[in-house]
Amino acid sequence: MASRTPSPTADRAARTAAAPGRGAAGERPRRRLSVDERREQLIAVALELFSRRPPEEVSIDDIAAAAGASRPLVYHYFPGKQALYEASLRRAGRELSARFEEPMEGPLSERLYRVMGRYLDFVQSHGPGFAALLRGGSVAASAGTSAVIDEVRRAAHDQILAHLAIPTPSPGLRLTVRAWIANAEITSLEWLAERSVPLEELQLHLVQEFVASLTLTAAREPALATELASFFADERPDGPSGRLVQDLAALFAVPGILDAVTALATGASTPAGPASAGPASADPAPAPPAPAPVDEPSAQATAGSADTADE
Amino acid sequence: MASRTPSPTADRAARTAAAPGRGAAGERPRRRLSVDERREQLIAVALELFSRRPPEEVSIDDIAAAAGASRPLVYHYFPGKQALYEASLRRAGRELSARFEEPMEGPLSERLYRVMGRYLDFVQSHGPGFAALLRGGSVAASAGTSAVIDEVRRAAHDQILAHLAIPTPSPGLRLTVRAWIANAEITSLEWLAERSVPLEELQLHLVQEFVASLTLTAAREPALATELASFFADERPDGPSGRLVQDLAALFAVPGILDAVTALATGASTPAGPASAGPASADPAPAPPAPAPVDEPSAQATAGSADTADE
Repeated sequence: MASRTPSPTADRAARTAAAPGRGAAGERPRRRLSVDERREQLIAVALELFSRRPPEEVSIDDIAAAAGASRPLVYHYFPGKQALYEASLRRAGRELSARFEEPMEGPLSERLYRVMGRYLDFVQSHGPGFAALLRGGSVAASAGTSAVIDEVRRAAHDQILAHLAIPTPSPGLRLTVRAWIANAEITSLEWLAERSVPLEELQLHLVQEFVASLTLTAAREPALATELASFFADERPDGPSGRLVQDLAALFAVPGILDAVTALATGASTPAGPASAGPASADPAPAPPAPAPVDEPSAQATAGSADTADE
Repeated sequence: MASRTPSPTADRAARTAAAPGRGAAGERPRRRLSVDERREQLIAVALELFSRRPPEEVSIDDIAAAAGASRPLVYHYFPGKQALYEASLRRAGRELSARFEEPMEGPLSERLYRVMGRYLDFVQSHGPGFAALLRGGSVAASAGTSAVIDEVRRAAHDQILAHLAIPTPSPGLRLTVRAWIANAEITSLEWLAERSVPLEELQLHLVQEFVASLTLTAAREPALATELASFFADERPDGPSGRLVQDLAALFAVPGILDAVTALATGASTPAGPASAGPASADPAPAPPAPAPVDEPSAQATAGSADTADE
């Protein structure tokens, strides 16, 4: 517990003068904290402030005042604002990564839905201050900050792959996961700036976009088809995937869409030759399965039939 | 090794010593250029160097040497390396934005495919040096650089919306476009780092992901269904959308997938839950608000749970 302040009293006066009325809520100034406690407290206070405002609008004085500490005391623990900023970002990164953890139970899209709820909650409470950093336009960006961000992205990536439970994910699948993480990041940053849709919608959409990306990846990589089958077999009608499928079924019932898509599917199912004679004109023939099946009574509604590679 | 001497001779000597054999290819040193020409030339040379290496590995001496100019001459035009870096980034941004321009003709996915070809070509030639900047971990990041990046993103966004030709794009659609741009950015940066798939695949995948995102957006926003119908009607079987549809059709022909997806589609058209003897033991599922009702006349949107979102 080493304070560098020559005089606590003078120091407290200076603090008060610098930031009148900014004492830490409910905390006695100068409460005796251990070295570790003090350090953690300063980081917590800094995180709180840096979460709400860009770094250039937070001063060491603000942090000291909010922590009920002296400015020299803060400097005793951290060489400067940047160090404190990075420490608080590391803390934020750990908190965020912890939110990615989710039991390996239940339909996958529902797990991701719960994770996204916690993620968006974090974005809402901590994002405003870190938005510039994540967008790449922050004065506080550094090798240290980008290491933290990379670490969080990697944690997200690893969690998703762990839940997918695919032993050796292909480069294409990894890329899909990374791209989706970027999508989630950007979308939530955009949301922070404009709040143009309800947060719950965002939560659902991001999960559904993941399901769609996974499906697209499997469409390019036949090796993933079995995994996709068991993924869908575990999903539930009122979960994110089920609702996505229903929305797509409704969309494909809109006049014109199913015909156009069917024409695209059949246009090339005739192998070789100048099959693409009429792009949109001819061939309304309803042949191979369109992406989202329209529900028809005769369709195999054998729900729960163990059709996949069982267990 | 760098000399600040005003003597051009000494300077040239120093340059040669510093970077032997690095003279501008095919260009006479000291060729007389107008002020504007010289400025543009310095930017072009700097862009060339900054495209290949991170800014910290490019010195003013390197730029002077490559431009066949003296170090003081470079300083005469630019106050320092950062200014030259930003000027070359602005040039890069303009070049990149110019590549987004595409005639308003032909199927939309094919237009985007051509644009992505030019974009990825740019990434391949200029990306390596700017990767850190785009990832947010560059020492050269500044308000100036992030303004350039934002400008390029906005150009991409505006071009896409112009081609979609939707008079008043919804916030959801704008978000989709922005998220896809981020996807393209991240995916191409990841590709630069790992080159794990052929570039042509990336080009096709990014376009197909756009088509999928657009479809998903229309699934949530019924107002877009008409636009989506005319989008698909213009597509061709051997274009990116056609191939996507065919790949998905093939995927859905894989045993298990169509059944599982059909179960999801129909599972919720039966009003109350238990009809679908759920794959994962009959359990209450989380009930996020349903965005769109199922398309069966008898089915109320009360799919087994106390839902909010209908009136």
